[in-house]
Amino acid sequence: MPATPSDPRPTRTRSWWGWGYADAHPDDTECAALGALLPGTLARPLPIPRIADLTIARPAVTPPPALAHSVTADPEARAAHAMGKAYRDVIRALRGRPGRIPDLVARPANDQEVADLLDWAGDHGVAVIPFGGGSSVVGGVEYRGDAHRAVLSLDLTSMDRVLEIDTVGRSARIQAGALGPVLEEQLRPHGLTLRHFPQSFEFSTLGGWLATRAGGHYATGRTHIDDFVQSLHVITPAGTSTSWRLPASGAGPSPDRLFLGSEGTLGIITEAWMRLQERPRYKASTAVAFTDFHQALGAVRAIAQSDLAPANCRLLDPGEALLSGASHDGSTVLVLGFESGTTRVEDRLATALDLARAHGGRGDARTVDRDAPADAAVSAWRSAFLRMPYLRDGLARMGAVIETFETAATWEAIPALIDAVRTQVGGAALKATGHPATINCRLTHVYPDGAAPYFTVAVAGRPGDEVEIWDDIKAAANDVLHRHRATITHHHAVGRDHRPAYDLQRPQPFALALRAAKNALDPHGILNPGVLMD
Amino acid sequence: MPATPSDPRPTRTRSWWGWGYADAHPDDTECAALGALLPGTLARPLPIPRIADLTIARPAVTPPPALAHSVTADPEARAAHAMGKAYRDVIRALRGRPGRIPDLVARPANDQEVADLLDWAGDHGVAVIPFGGGSSVVGGVEYRGDAHRAVLSLDLTSMDRVLEIDTVGRSARIQAGALGPVLEEQLRPHGLTLRHFPQSFEFSTLGGWLATRAGGHYATGRTHIDDFVQSLHVITPAGTSTSWRLPASGAGPSPDRLFLGSEGTLGIITEAWMRLQERPRYKASTAVAFTDFHQALGAVRAIAQSDLAPANCRLLDPGEALLSGASHDGSTVLVLGFESGTTRVEDRLATALDLARAHGGRGDARTVDRDAPADAAVSAWRSAFLRMPYLRDGLARMGAVIETFETAATWEAIPALIDAVRTQVGGAALKATGHPATINCRLTHVYPDGAAPYFTVAVAGRPGDEVEIWDDIKAAANDVLHRHRATITHHHAVGRDHRPAYDLQRPQPFALALRAAKNALDPHGILNPGVLMD
Repeated sequence: MPATPSDPRPTRTRSWWGWGYADAHPDDTECAALGALLPGTLARPLPIPRIADLTIARPAVTPPPALAHSVTADPEARAAHAMGKAYRDVIRALRGRPGRIPDLVARPANDQEVADLLDWAGDHGVAVIPFGGGSSVVGGVEYRGDAHRAVLSLDLTSMDRVLEIDTVGRSARIQAGALGPVLEEQLRPHGLTLRHFPQSFEFSTLGGWLATRAGGHYATGRTHIDDFVQSLHVITPAGTSTSWRLPASGAGPSPDRLFLGSEGTLGIITEAWMRLQERPRYKASTAVAFTDFHQALGAVRAIAQSDLAPANCRLLDPGEALLSGASHDGSTVLVLGFESGTTRVEDRLATALDLARAHGGRGDARTVDRDAPADAAVSAWRSAFLRMPYLRDGLARMGAVIETFETAATWEAIPALIDAVRTQVGGAALKATGHPATINCRLTHVYPDGAAPYFTVAVAGRPGDEVEIWDDIKAAANDVLHRHRATITHHHAVGRDHRPAYDLQRPQPFALALRAAKNALDPHGILNPGVLMD
Repeated sequence: MPATPSDPRPTRTRSWWGWGYADAHPDDTECAALGALLPGTLARPLPIPRIADLTIARPAVTPPPALAHSVTADPEARAAHAMGKAYRDVIRALRGRPGRIPDLVARPANDQEVADLLDWAGDHGVAVIPFGGGSSVVGGVEYRGDAHRAVLSLDLTSMDRVLEIDTVGRSARIQAGALGPVLEEQLRPHGLTLRHFPQSFEFSTLGGWLATRAGGHYATGRTHIDDFVQSLHVITPAGTSTSWRLPASGAGPSPDRLFLGSEGTLGIITEAWMRLQERPRYKASTAVAFTDFHQALGAVRAIAQSDLAPANCRLLDPGEALLSGASHDGSTVLVLGFESGTTRVEDRLATALDLARAHGGRGDARTVDRDAPADAAVSAWRSAFLRMPYLRDGLARMGAVIETFETAATWEAIPALIDAVRTQVGGAALKATGHPATINCRLTHVYPDGAAPYFTVAVAGRPGDEVEIWDDIKAAANDVLHRHRATITHHHAVGRDHRPAYDLQRPQPFALALRAAKNALDPHGILNPGVLMD
């Protein structure tokens, strides 16, 4: 069944240098108010950078006439495709030092154009940087180095349609360039949803989620996009890989699992059949307060090791709780939410509350939404969550060094890991800036065997040295993660920024295998060079 | 915490030619009774084959003195490692035509011995066939062809200890050579269980499950062993690959997922950290009868698309139901079971029953076990299930061609797929033998987007032509699966028997990538040659 046509593509203007929509950025007054919260920041915000102030070289290559209609050398488009949206990217733009601006931006309309662009790039030594929503926070969508004659940013967002829906098996064939709202809007008339809601939901695409193994809505169980993939359609320089639509298979190593997380180094994902769900009919959520963060960890572990399967199970330390308005008294807060298309969920919530109370939690079911038609209880938390990257950019304009990093580790490692981040990353920030840093922590996803902590670091920088300061802080963070055997990324991907840590984490024989696979599929080495491997 | 020492290794004698324990095989009288159920079979069973009657050549190679203590050329050991336990293997043994008998059998005691054996084999052109419990039904543990100077069967079962247990994160480091009961026995004192119970549980190892992506206990959700892997430790000729113990990660393509399903072609899995569960405290199960198989499919789909997550949700067609004693009136039977370590499960069972009744199911909760301390209600079904391969071998001795095959497909494809198997595989069996075949079907695992049907084919053969007859029937089966885009295997693996179908199913670029990975990790091409790729 074809999807109902509709056009929910965004019409608001995206910021070329910062997060999201340009009109959603904090204004100068709000920036100053934010800066006042962080001692040592600037008195006035840095000006918003202008593309007109950049030096943008003429493209080093010209596409052949047959491809010209899908390729542009427009400076605005090129500047907007130069980097992702990490703090490192934002501050480089604010300081007038963006990453290398691609020579060209292509917006292919179909598989054939993607294949033709790869052929042309291979023949001419042009690096191809796949680009979805451009929300990478790990240097995943910029070119570094000079080993290629030119750089092409391959923007997939013109391929954004839901092409087929299988209502019997609740799945859909979706083009990889669809942004979150664009694909959900097309699924809605069928009563179905992918229910993948990362923080970047509005500004990231299905293809980006797949290529980076994005983490999504569910705090337990199927946390990563990986588990919702039924089949992948990938254009590689060595041919097109289309896996069969299967609910499960045991036929050799999973082809899809090789492309999931390949971050554009092995091929361009242009379509996927995705497993969908009915829109939930029953919901219930509440918040539980704890005096002691470490005791709260015990509660979360008990819930994660039960089979209650909350959709939301996010633990906010006092700083995070304060920031999101969940608590103002220094409490640690556990946000618990259940949803189902089948049965009422109050019993599951009540059992989870019992487990939390057994670990010192204070909360009751009074805040429960019974069969809420919309996400009322979660909306306050969600709007703070979605606003956060804009505030980060506002603080960046005030001269703050402010960024997040995330990881996952076994439960045994979690308490010491979190303590070490506070101590050692905090110490590195103080050493680098002379200012005390704010370090907040939340658990975004939890598992029976461990959890995924997410950290925010904010500290006043030194004008002009922000990138180097952040790199020092991040080096300390990577060191802590490595010593606690915590992954360099739970769901932000590796990109270029995480390479040194990834290289230490990845088993060496797997590196050999991946390198060999890359050589087989991308013999000219044009696909996202520098990501995952050299 | 080290595991409590114990020695639950089996002391009963394994059959060298047939399934399981020699003393569990049907005797001649039972064989004759079985044969009487299938028109056209022999009057008397074929004799049990004897190793003494085989012609076993002297080994073509001698291991170096340093490895001699872990290697044997004993004819009994070599014969017992010549093949797996498919019908094809059993009948070849019964007919005195076993597969190529390996020159040597090694039973390494540790990683170093495994690495040394691989080094030696690489230097001397010796094929290495990894061997766990030897229960492969796809030609996964035999050598075919003559491209190697000699063949070494690498039996991992001396490495069968639970080495560490993390009770906080409920996981354990387990050696790959542990048979199912051997590892569960070591976990039991800690109140933990892997809960992976394939039909071959007693005769297959953790390493075999991992290398073949085995399907296990759970009929929904985490159906494959893949989802229980926290990290893998793999010895390859290019070095040892040890992934970090992580509850989840988004750092590049999953290293573990490349080795899962690699069937011994990329390396030897010698250890894994596995995610465990508490032993369930609450259980409830029942059976639901249906007059119409296709209507029952609707019920199972509704349950699979709910979030009720039954542990058991196996749909037996009338033939399967009769065979397992679940029904004698031609009904289709759905076996439903729930279990939990957290909460009572009667409500979930009741909701599932409601869904089944809405699709014409007849059943109530009278057969529910409340908090059953043991698996009482499931035990009848389970004992029939575990007895099945022995009966297959009894029928094979009566000249029957009898085998199973399994697959998975989307719900949309399932009804026509099952009908086509009955018609076309039945037609091929009739054409090949002149006898009508019995074809039974059950769904072993179900998913929101599809299901895994499992078929049993039984027909009287023609003395001496059984292998060729089965190959004809299997070719028809493969053709039906391919035309319905149903995987060649949901959990039996590819081995050598499924290669032609696997080669058609696997995306060509993935084949290139896998071949390249193989060349990088196994440059001498000694690891399980012929499996997955040439």
